[in-house]
Amino acid sequence: MLDTIDPGALIGAMGARARAAARVLASLPTERKAAALRAAAAALRARTPAILAANQADMDAAADLSPAMRDRLRLDPTRLESIAAAVETVAALPDPVGQVIDTTERPNGLRLQRVRVPIGVIGIIYESRPNVTADAAALCVMAGNAAILRGGSEAVRSNRAIHAALAEGLGQAGVPADAIQLVPTQDRAAVGAMLAGAGVLDMVVPRGGKGLVARVQAEARVPVLAHLDGNNHVYVDGSADPAMAAAVVLDAKLRRTGICGAMETLLIDRAYSDAGALVAALRAAGCEVRGDTAVQALDTAVGLATEEDWDTEYLEAISAVAIVDGVDGAIAHIARHGSHHTDAIVASDAAVAERFLAAVDSAIVLWNASTQFADGGEFGLGAEIGIATGRLHARGPVALEGLTTYKWVGRGTGQVRG
Amino acid sequence: MLDTIDPGALIGAMGARARAAARVLASLPTERKAAALRAAAAALRARTPAILAANQADMDAAADLSPAMRDRLRLDPTRLESIAAAVETVAALPDPVGQVIDTTERPNGLRLQRVRVPIGVIGIIYESRPNVTADAAALCVMAGNAAILRGGSEAVRSNRAIHAALAEGLGQAGVPADAIQLVPTQDRAAVGAMLAGAGVLDMVVPRGGKGLVARVQAEARVPVLAHLDGNNHVYVDGSADPAMAAAVVLDAKLRRTGICGAMETLLIDRAYSDAGALVAALRAAGCEVRGDTAVQALDTAVGLATEEDWDTEYLEAISAVAIVDGVDGAIAHIARHGSHHTDAIVASDAAVAERFLAAVDSAIVLWNASTQFADGGEFGLGAEIGIATGRLHARGPVALEGLTTYKWVGRGTGQVRG
Repeated sequence: MLDTIDPGALIGAMGARARAAARVLASLPTERKAAALRAAAAALRARTPAILAANQADMDAAADLSPAMRDRLRLDPTRLESIAAAVETVAALPDPVGQVIDTTERPNGLRLQRVRVPIGVIGIIYESRPNVTADAAALCVMAGNAAILRGGSEAVRSNRAIHAALAEGLGQAGVPADAIQLVPTQDRAAVGAMLAGAGVLDMVVPRGGKGLVARVQAEARVPVLAHLDGNNHVYVDGSADPAMAAAVVLDAKLRRTGICGAMETLLIDRAYSDAGALVAALRAAGCEVRGDTAVQALDTAVGLATEEDWDTEYLEAISAVAIVDGVDGAIAHIARHGSHHTDAIVASDAAVAERFLAAVDSAIVLWNASTQFADGGEFGLGAEIGIATGRLHARGPVALEGLTTYKWVGRGTGQVRG
Repeated sequence: MLDTIDPGALIGAMGARARAAARVLASLPTERKAAALRAAAAALRARTPAILAANQADMDAAADLSPAMRDRLRLDPTRLESIAAAVETVAALPDPVGQVIDTTERPNGLRLQRVRVPIGVIGIIYESRPNVTADAAALCVMAGNAAILRGGSEAVRSNRAIHAALAEGLGQAGVPADAIQLVPTQDRAAVGAMLAGAGVLDMVVPRGGKGLVARVQAEARVPVLAHLDGNNHVYVDGSADPAMAAAVVLDAKLRRTGICGAMETLLIDRAYSDAGALVAALRAAGCEVRGDTAVQALDTAVGLATEEDWDTEYLEAISAVAIVDGVDGAIAHIARHGSHHTDAIVASDAAVAERFLAAVDSAIVLWNASTQFADGGEFGLGAEIGIATGRLHARGPVALEGLTTYKWVGRGTGQVRG
């Protein structure tokens, strides 16, 4: 039935309701938004049996999915409790709305402030992870925005059950239920209507694999907050402490290989004396190494990296390794092959490190720390809607502040320009 | 000859040179950028005869243009001196690049900062005003960006002469000439190539009439910083001081009718006792008034406003006038018809004014001040690349800060996530 509704008309109607809800949300006091999210968390807990049953039905219907996809889809009591707790964490974050960015008084007495305000209506397009339904909705609401959620078809029953709990929580706190809407059809044309730039969405956040993000970026007529690749580098300078270098490199590559903050290419200064041990440590830890000829000369078991390897985000226990000529060689390699996500240097020489931090044009640059810290929680943001590698609005881990914009507020005493 | 070059290849090659120049500019010290702009200003003055001769040739070729267009195109010694002085003003502004937005230290000792960095390569697409060539280029360079400029065909000789002066100034300061490039063809396909989102531009700023802005917004696959309409309102509350209300309304509407900050619709509280005098004052000052039936009841010479009038940016001595029910009536009218540019309230009641400032969702909201203050110079920014009414990145008058983004810089002591 729903799949026979014109998707453009459906999204247009949802957008109009979201816009009306956003106007209410924009001026809600912090405590009302927080109370709504706490009530939503309580409803998630109270509805645990229903949500898990819906998730089981999704799992039963998704028998053909890969084990990794099934793991992302699967909920259990512990995972559902984490989802509820994450909503409460967002409820306890400082409210960005109303924060004053700066204040000036003009010579004519006009007092000007830039004040943070919500963006408006945010679209979230995601794949099979049902936790995104609650996480993204909570962040949007706390920042005073309405959210239109479109999850993957594998998780449709789970998402509906989680959405029902969120709506119950909002309702208990007197917040418009239209603040969080779930697109009720899996028709692909509904996504097209969301992205069409017809005034429905002010911003869209794709959450999922590279295929999804690339499709949204290609098609969207509204601003997209996202990252496509995390082709991250660690550069080990000649001045690096070998023990620190090994610890950072192994953590950056192998702590979790499938996350966007994982190292994909290791760059080693030609002047670094311990390169052989570093490559050996990676291999000993189970990482395949693909190196240039200089790396092969250190270890004959290393495969030869092709040009493609320098551009590849493996998301596996594979690392490309290149020998470069000092920090400038590293900066040039990253400028050519990087994806502007997260890049790190290990060095004892502070001047070299500062040169790297200044010259590498990535959302996150780190000195003597693992790239796996690229995460809103690790950065102290309390949560994240995603990591952005675009150049405008917000970069790196984005949480509540990135879900706001600002307006200029001027208070005068009858000033005219004359 | 140039018009036979493939525009896509041309823009691609310009973009690659701009990208290389942007990498150099990103780490130039403030004084080098300022010196380049001061040298550019000196070159503009030294080349006055050549620039005025080129402009005269443009004027001769543009005999068919409207008087308003010819006035925008025309340069004279005074206007050229203003252009040079504006470049020096930008050179004296505080450098946004390297500014630290905030600093945090994580429990694990990782020190994080958000640091302002240039956006990269900015495209400016503009019409017949040759001053934009110098103004926009100066702002881009001071914020560490490369600029690709595409001016209107009427001003092509003027723009080339101004561009030559800018390039000379950059060269004298050892700044790459590719930091400011002028598209050498008027082929419309070159604009398409700039907007195509092929990695050439990081942002585009259209400067000109509504037709140009609408075309760029419709076609661009890169972020656009712009405003389409300035359908601005002044709301006169029942608590307003009548003398202040008249002064603000007359200035907002009539000081200059053709600028984007001009008032287009006056909203008067049904409880305001001096509405008749306000309408009479507008009419006495030469402004045509189109009112609703309640306004017509005040003054039988007032024409009836149609639904279209509420949505019209006249940019002329015409004002739509509506009687509304208090501040909530004004907020509802603006939400329905406004363009999110600049809206003002005149009121003595502070609670009413604060309600307006909070609820009106515009880039600029003003209390007891004229909408004609909507300007980067008036806001103390020293200059402006434009006024933005989009919701992301920057809103209202945009100057140097809006031409930057930020990156996260983390300094550790070997932290791993473990």
